Amino acid sequence: MQRIDAHTRVCALLGHPVGHSLSPAIHNAAFEALDLPFVYVAHDVAPADLAAALRGALACGYRGLSVTIPHKVAALSLADEVDEAGRVIGCINTVVCEGGRLLGTTSDGQGALNALRAAGADPEGRRVVVLGSGGAARALAVSLALHTPPLSLHLLGIELPELERLSHDVAALRRCPVKAEPFEARALRPLLGQTDLLLQCTPVGMAPATDATLVPAEALHAGLTVLDAVYNPRRTRLLTEAARAGCRVVEGMEMFLGQAAVQFELWTGQPAPLEVMRRVLEVSL
Amino acid sequence: MQRIDAHTRVCALLGHPVGHSLSPAIHNAAFEALDLPFVYVAHDVAPADLAAALRGALACGYRGLSVTIPHKVAALSLADEVDEAGRVIGCINTVVCEGGRLLGTTSDGQGALNALRAAGADPEGRRVVVLGSGGAARALAVSLALHTPPLSLHLLGIELPELERLSHDVAALRRCPVKAEPFEARALRPLLGQTDLLLQCTPVGMAPATDATLVPAEALHAGLTVLDAVYNPRRTRLLTEAARAGCRVVEGMEMFLGQAAVQFELWTGQPAPLEVMRRVLEVSL
Repeated sequence: MQRIDAHTRVCALLGHPVGHSLSPAIHNAAFEALDLPFVYVAHDVAPADLAAALRGALACGYRGLSVTIPHKVAALSLADEVDEAGRVIGCINTVVCEGGRLLGTTSDGQGALNALRAAGADPEGRRVVVLGSGGAARALAVSLALHTPPLSLHLLGIELPELERLSHDVAALRRCPVKAEPFEARALRPLLGQTDLLLQCTPVGMAPATDATLVPAEALHAGLTVLDAVYNPRRTRLLTEAARAGCRVVEGMEMFLGQAAVQFELWTGQPAPLEVMRRVLEVSL
Repeated sequence: MQRIDAHTRVCALLGHPVGHSLSPAIHNAAFEALDLPFVYVAHDVAPADLAAALRGALACGYRGLSVTIPHKVAALSLADEVDEAGRVIGCINTVVCEGGRLLGTTSDGQGALNALRAAGADPEGRRVVVLGSGGAARALAVSLALHTPPLSLHLLGIELPELERLSHDVAALRRCPVKAEPFEARALRPLLGQTDLLLQCTPVGMAPATDATLVPAEALHAGLTVLDAVYNPRRTRLLTEAARAGCRVVEGMEMFLGQAAVQFELWTGQPAPLEVMRRVLEVSL
């Protein structure tokens, strides 16, 4: 850890709780690797205190914030400005303090996009299926539509009003054809046969229920890239079966890493040292 | 520097400007020496933003704050509770965040007392002369009266309304006899002949005018302890001449160190590692 002096710039996580967070370790290792005068701390902020915490960070000259559960939606309305992705997704996970204002954005979707590109699976112009309609699905579907419009976007979910809303919001961007359907396992095989990218954005497969998967192994094929937003375990049952079927696989850890890297670059203006950050995550997970 | 993780507690300096401050270096070295999960950062806070910064620190779960120029007076009225010393002195330089409240106090006077005691010059029951009536003089005179009542307290100053107010405020504590007089150099010799402790609390002698002193060398004598609140240079002309006259001398650096140690102990509940903190100061000054 480098020395902290009166010129050190502060970034912080606002969440509740925060004790489990790996973000301080990742960001501080990255600051140190590039010898940047920054430090990253974690603040456990009760929901009723979120506005005071955000205004306080601005008053204290913080450079930026990560925002996590349960503050992502409320922070959107407390920021001074929110970019299009954040507004459409309906939450933010990143704040940059600039010119006395809190600029909100979300790095989740962009982090996932970067992870897909790094794996050689740019979604632009490809046929994409998204499983789920919650926060991760919204972040990915909206970011894809905005930044790398796929040839088609197929949304499958079980929370129908939520699914309908996501479908409507993405369609309203008018960047790519969007279709939404209730999830049915048996319909996956024919659908995935026509699919280039499968983005698994539900919690299914997360520890402790690591034996669960939504995707029958026989629906997987070598032409498919599979990203699983679940990162605990790193290798979910879905990813294990996908790798066995010859798919390219992208672990949820790479998404998590990707969103941290996007934040790092927004705050410091420097390319994130991905290898350093990945090493910290690998040791911790 | 130890690793910062999601459990690390945050303390900070609020000032304007803060770029010159040695407090982050001192406190972080002390935290590290005792292996405490704390970090200390500096926040440059504009006066208009002080309330937001204080409430934000509370919302973010900070453990404590140092408050410096120009916020010491304003912070007093923004704290949720202020101890007697802070109220009488009229400013605070220390905040402890506890139970969702900002508890304000001042560590300047107590730091000076500790420095005097460490030098074997406890002011209790002794004849004390204070030069000056500004912030440092107020902190020392009030703290002496409250915590180690001297046999007599003699205040000498040139800002007469300020001197009068200080004299009145200390007398109102009813802990020791107080006398205030306009400063006159030629009256010092007979007065100091009857004095045990001389506390120099004006900026006279500070760099760059290091040749200045308020005290004629012939007024100094071996029975006297001299503390100079000026710490740049460490050895002022007054202290040089006092040492030559056989006086016990206490450098302003020890006062600065003492106030930092008091803050450290309030935040951590641990005895401050004074030698570690002094080493950082000595290297920096």
